[in-house]
Amino acid sequence: MRRSIATVSLSGTLEEKLHAAAAAGFDGVEIFENDLVASPLPPREIRALADDLGLGIDLYQPFRDFEGVDDDLLEANLRRAEAKFALMLELGVDTLLVCSTTAQAASGDDARAAAHLHRLAETAAPYGVRIAYEALAWGRHVNDYQHSWRIVADADHPSLGVCLDSFHILSRRSDPAGIGDIPGEKIFYLQLADAPYMAMDLLQWSRHYRCFPGQGGFDLTAFTRHVLAAGYTGPLSLEVFNDVFRAADPHRTAADALRSLSVLEDALSREHQPGVTAGPQRPAVTLTRLPEPAHPAGYAFVEVAARPSTATWVRTVLAGLGFAHTRDHRSKPVELWAHGHTRILLSSTDPRLGHTWSDDTAVTALGVEVADPDRAAQRAEHLLAPALPRRRDPAETRLNAVAAPDGTALFFCPAPTDREETWLADFTAAPVHTPTHGGATPLTGIDHVGLFQPFDHFDEAALFYRSVLGLAPAESLELAAPDGLVRSRALTGPGGGPRIALSVSVLGRGAQADAAGGAQHIALACDDIFAAAQALREGGLAPLTIPDNYYADLAARTDLPPALRERMRADGVLYDRAGSGEFFHFYTPLLDSRLFFEVVQRTGGYDGYGAANTPVRMAAHRAEHTQ
Amino acid sequence: MRRSIATVSLSGTLEEKLHAAAAAGFDGVEIFENDLVASPLPPREIRALADDLGLGIDLYQPFRDFEGVDDDLLEANLRRAEAKFALMLELGVDTLLVCSTTAQAASGDDARAAAHLHRLAETAAPYGVRIAYEALAWGRHVNDYQHSWRIVADADHPSLGVCLDSFHILSRRSDPAGIGDIPGEKIFYLQLADAPYMAMDLLQWSRHYRCFPGQGGFDLTAFTRHVLAAGYTGPLSLEVFNDVFRAADPHRTAADALRSLSVLEDALSREHQPGVTAGPQRPAVTLTRLPEPAHPAGYAFVEVAARPSTATWVRTVLAGLGFAHTRDHRSKPVELWAHGHTRILLSSTDPRLGHTWSDDTAVTALGVEVADPDRAAQRAEHLLAPALPRRRDPAETRLNAVAAPDGTALFFCPAPTDREETWLADFTAAPVHTPTHGGATPLTGIDHVGLFQPFDHFDEAALFYRSVLGLAPAESLELAAPDGLVRSRALTGPGGGPRIALSVSVLGRGAQADAAGGAQHIALACDDIFAAAQALREGGLAPLTIPDNYYADLAARTDLPPALRERMRADGVLYDRAGSGEFFHFYTPLLDSRLFFEVVQRTGGYDGYGAANTPVRMAAHRAEHTQ
Repeated sequence: MRRSIATVSLSGTLEEKLHAAAAAGFDGVEIFENDLVASPLPPREIRALADDLGLGIDLYQPFRDFEGVDDDLLEANLRRAEAKFALMLELGVDTLLVCSTTAQAASGDDARAAAHLHRLAETAAPYGVRIAYEALAWGRHVNDYQHSWRIVADADHPSLGVCLDSFHILSRRSDPAGIGDIPGEKIFYLQLADAPYMAMDLLQWSRHYRCFPGQGGFDLTAFTRHVLAAGYTGPLSLEVFNDVFRAADPHRTAADALRSLSVLEDALSREHQPGVTAGPQRPAVTLTRLPEPAHPAGYAFVEVAARPSTATWVRTVLAGLGFAHTRDHRSKPVELWAHGHTRILLSSTDPRLGHTWSDDTAVTALGVEVADPDRAAQRAEHLLAPALPRRRDPAETRLNAVAAPDGTALFFCPAPTDREETWLADFTAAPVHTPTHGGATPLTGIDHVGLFQPFDHFDEAALFYRSVLGLAPAESLELAAPDGLVRSRALTGPGGGPRIALSVSVLGRGAQADAAGGAQHIALACDDIFAAAQALREGGLAPLTIPDNYYADLAARTDLPPALRERMRADGVLYDRAGSGEFFHFYTPLLDSRLFFEVVQRTGGYDGYGAANTPVRMAAHRAEHTQ
Repeated sequence: MRRSIATVSLSGTLEEKLHAAAAAGFDGVEIFENDLVASPLPPREIRALADDLGLGIDLYQPFRDFEGVDDDLLEANLRRAEAKFALMLELGVDTLLVCSTTAQAASGDDARAAAHLHRLAETAAPYGVRIAYEALAWGRHVNDYQHSWRIVADADHPSLGVCLDSFHILSRRSDPAGIGDIPGEKIFYLQLADAPYMAMDLLQWSRHYRCFPGQGGFDLTAFTRHVLAAGYTGPLSLEVFNDVFRAADPHRTAADALRSLSVLEDALSREHQPGVTAGPQRPAVTLTRLPEPAHPAGYAFVEVAARPSTATWVRTVLAGLGFAHTRDHRSKPVELWAHGHTRILLSSTDPRLGHTWSDDTAVTALGVEVADPDRAAQRAEHLLAPALPRRRDPAETRLNAVAAPDGTALFFCPAPTDREETWLADFTAAPVHTPTHGGATPLTGIDHVGLFQPFDHFDEAALFYRSVLGLAPAESLELAAPDGLVRSRALTGPGGGPRIALSVSVLGRGAQADAAGGAQHIALACDDIFAAAQALREGGLAPLTIPDNYYADLAARTDLPPALRERMRADGVLYDRAGSGEFFHFYTPLLDSRLFFEVVQRTGGYDGYGAANTPVRMAAHRAEHTQ
């Protein structure tokens, strides 16, 4: 299907928006009037630029407060419309979005509104312009798509149809099934926007918090299915008012936007069965089909970069938790630390040896085990994930990798088999095994990886992991850290697979993004939290100290036995409970303000991350940092 | 009266919050439980620290979901409460805030709630603890202060009273007059918070958008008057959940907070007539009384700093608009440019000559004409405005100046009289008068000054100008600039006086705060916009070019005569209308991405700032900037 984006969804000047939309691969744009009014380019030059960029102009919008007025104002409104029709001729755009009126003085008489819209369509026809009438969710009289359709049907003019906008329909929790009652050829335009569910004024929600499909809480697959089933064949067009996107790099935003439509089309292509729902008049639409999602079974490895002065600390943590330095990469300064099938790569950022992706301590790469690495890479490529080049000698394994929005490398690794080591063959036995402390520790794998995101790329990151790996995002949470609010959102593979916890500073303020809140972490799973804490301690590193006040509060609000609480206190173990599930977890201190480890034990099907304890952890990291 | 602040209102660790509250001059704090739980300080050390800092601990909060539960849970809740009473003994705090329950399972039976609260008070009494029961605006059954008071009255225990919170009452638009029905001694605590009026979920509104009294839309003077009339004598305590304050410097926030209470008390002290409303039991409360607000008549001057390479441009603008360089400061590299009684100071930031407050091009100082400069300075000092030292030779006039939140210097100037030049005497005749171009231009004064604010200090700045100068703030507006949203708020003196338009990047992102959105400006008033534009042009500088598309849109949506529109287009004049008032205005290009001038003409009582045109102006500045 044709893919479009409204210029209001992107930051910058109109010219910059058009370049960004074209670069991402959109077929067309909706021109938002304010962008045109503020542009120094005359309409004909805007059209020429769009032509040069291979973009159609699919819609001009919005035209407001037209219908239901008195006769004098109707004539003035028709003159106002004619000026826009003339402009549209120059722009080469044939559809005008007309929003249902919000004027206090407007009449609520449907027949009058229909008569006015008929006049408007009649006036538009000679210009070759079509009128797409949209029910704003906060329209004065018309705020529901079925109401707008009744008026359009009554007005009965070939140049008049409806515009459907998923936000206006789903924000009011209207049932989209009724879309099937509208003839496809009378749906003149389709605007798509997702949004997180929020209890707030519809207008404010719409103007500030819309996001791209797959980033919010609406079921846009079901919604769009209804529209296609009605026979709509026009563009899938994104109209997203979002405070962050308005201030972010438009090229990044446009790629994020196109990715959202690819995932939507892919999901629809897997469901859409034209034979079942098609009527005789149904035209064919072609939906983009992507390679299957990777659905990784788990982490093949997590790679950490550290400077030589801090790598020692990472080795102490790993050895303490029972990892052994078993291998070294053949050609790069990368150590492989293993604990059973759990693997952490430690890459040196020693400038003498050449650094990797970061100059600083950080989680730099995630390796996920997938059944078909080539297919996973192809899907990622279709989703505009930048492929990462690998400098390697010819004997090394080819591993597909792409860059996540925050620059983390995502590697698609085949699972090692009994006969074949795959990528592990690039690592040779380490000359000296670092001895592990504490013997066999109770680690069972990597529970999750926590990645603090750049402010502008939080929603983009959630969609990236969702679409590339097929992970399912949970609801966003807000946490009150000592230096400001932090937003957090976890993604999990259906039926297991890797867990990723994304977080971001709600205001993107410097102090917070730099301090404890902004750190990344690796959480290791275990089946005996106290044995793990003891092993770490015996290895020479004490778990992060949690204030006694936390345990006093825990005593007040839970019935945990005093002996257990005392043991938790001694080891800095925190606690959460949900239903019959329990969660015990401790942290290491913070390295370089950038990296820490967590060890977690889940029981009884606990499926969270102990988010309520995060502010306590952040304060404890901050306290040690400022000591 | 005693002044307190809840620790949740400030950023940082508990220790940092206590230090900030004490440094600003608060008498006490409310300790928010999460701050204590995350603190490494044992309760006795927290108390000792507060003692050392001269702070009382006036409230411990919150205790949630206590009442209306089944019998088993009641016993568990009482045990939970006893743990907190023991903690409170160590902290030395005698009042516990208990919020009305939000639990789904809680009973809505008032008698049961009263019985439970009686049990709680009975349990608290031996610890010397009082229970202050608060109706949360989103409480499950109790969400109104009159309801909470009925339950407290029924429970009838000397250790049980109510806590009143202005947000919970005014957000629901409850009438605070009923507070008079509560005996003053049963109002155990008073929490004050303002908020901008927003159409959103009460909980989200409360958790993110509270602000200090005078920064939002609530009438806290009237509210507090009711509480004092009831006979309340406890602390005025600020409990403000605000995303920005959570991430800002706590010392700045605490000073801002205390300033808000000073203004509130001052306003009350001017109204409070104990003789009229006092009952026999009324105890005396002492309200802080400040010197009268300055109520400036207008601007004495606006000072602009420019580097030598850019000062030439400023001179071109000023000369073009009819200003003459009439004088130079005796001891500093400052030129006085005058047009009648309108004065702009141009200070050189040439490092060879010593720079002033900024190293860059900027509006650095505002001089306002006040009847009593000493009184104005005393008021500012009481409001914690940092006094600015003046390096001067002994012969110079002493001018009182304070620093506004963004660092702009605010000078309190006496009006020159026929007999005395006052501060103007520090300026001597310039050796060479720069000739003005265009002869007599139609300027009538300074219309307003536009100051782009640092992200963290927008609300603080509005309260600063409101409290120090007695200006009245208008509602905040949001504008969609090319690089993101901008929030804008104007302040005007009652009955004239200087106008100040504050603005801020809604997300505080770098690109926007640095580019056109972030600039400061001086708007000059005139009575003939076209004559002013022509004068500027003849002086060698063309007004900022506004796109033809803007005028095409203006033609479509207004009935302005074509000849007038064409003249506006030729001079880059923009237009706004409100009622019978009209606004014509043009801009200069942008200097150094930091400074521009505007010329405005108001007719028919127009009282706005043409805000709808601001995005067009920003795009035009941005376009010239990137050419």
